[in-house]
Amino acid sequence: MEDIEEFEYEPRSVKELFIEMKNIVELMVDLAYSSILFGDKEIAEEVLDLEERMDLLNYQMMVHAVLAARNVKEAEKVTSILQMANAIEDISNAAGDLAKMVLEGLEPHPVIKEAILESEEIIAKITVTPNSILAGKTLGELKLASNTGVWIIAVRRGKRWIFAPDKDFRIKPLDVLIGRGTHTSIEHLKEIARGVIRVVGHERA
Amino acid sequence: MEDIEEFEYEPRSVKELFIEMKNIVELMVDLAYSSILFGDKEIAEEVLDLEERMDLLNYQMMVHAVLAARNVKEAEKVTSILQMANAIEDISNAAGDLAKMVLEGLEPHPVIKEAILESEEIIAKITVTPNSILAGKTLGELKLASNTGVWIIAVRRGKRWIFAPDKDFRIKPLDVLIGRGTHTSIEHLKEIARGVIRVVGHERA
Repeated sequence: MEDIEEFEYEPRSVKELFIEMKNIVELMVDLAYSSILFGDKEIAEEVLDLEERMDLLNYQMMVHAVLAARNVKEAEKVTSILQMANAIEDISNAAGDLAKMVLEGLEPHPVIKEAILESEEIIAKITVTPNSILAGKTLGELKLASNTGVWIIAVRRGKRWIFAPDKDFRIKPLDVLIGRGTHTSIEHLKEIARGVIRVVGHERA
Repeated sequence: MEDIEEFEYEPRSVKELFIEMKNIVELMVDLAYSSILFGDKEIAEEVLDLEERMDLLNYQMMVHAVLAARNVKEAEKVTSILQMANAIEDISNAAGDLAKMVLEGLEPHPVIKEAILESEEIIAKITVTPNSILAGKTLGELKLASNTGVWIIAVRRGKRWIFAPDKDFRIKPLDVLIGRGTHTSIEHLKEIARGVIRVVGHERA
């Protein structure tokens, strides 16, 4: 009942729902790997919260999509939306399964962590030192993803997690960034975070 | 029978199998979105070929993992490998389902392409002009992923596709790169590919 009310009071376009689903599922997969890599139950919990959010979005999407079809031609196009939403939902469930492994306290085999650390795109923790040029700047000001190739999926600040920080998120000294990128990108960002490298991208920051 | 023979003659570690599975599944998802975005059946076929490869890897992985367990403690750890492999296989199947939409000629609803083009990480075609500094250089020399934040998932050269080009892949003029990255990263790389920007990363290329 709550879902339906929210749907009625918050009418959103199918496109908006889709974009949110696609962004969330990518975040979920990254966070699921992170939760395994760091054995972190809070990250795993966030994956399951996102899985619930995904279920709601998928429900809203289906209602919207079905309402939109007025003839056979349109119904065929709508079918493509439902198929795509199903595939995204399947990926979301797979990420949820990975997170559940962590929550159930299953000891992961060492090769799992090794594989996450040695694949083409890896996940790593990056601690920001007080004298790093990152400290005090927003992700948007730094254009971090474009300038370093590292995508920040979460930040640990003291005892708190911030998931999927946006461009207005301001990095503070001692923040621990969870980033996804190539080995080279991650190493480069680690040196910036340590204060060894004093530029980000083309301009002096 | 063929699978088993290949398995017997190519003994590989569980870690190697895992790393390959993780790399392939990420490529599959990117290629599946690309095949939908560009309505390209060749890319979709590649996704299905990779799905078959994934099945073989998953089979080899299971045999290895089960053989490795010699007591209850080890068996528990091996279970984590099987669960992880299952989740990766589920994601691979979801990517395969997306590719099948393209192969079946299902007309995708316009919002699907819009959503792929407007989410946080997007996919785009980038044509390399003859006077671009990219032409004639390898991906490794350019450190493209680290320097621009764009991950090259495939390259169209004339009538041929090259999927998952590695660091030794040399870009030629008129190559069409299929890249994944943020909007800013993609726009930046497009200007480099057009010859407007004459540097990649921190050094003059």
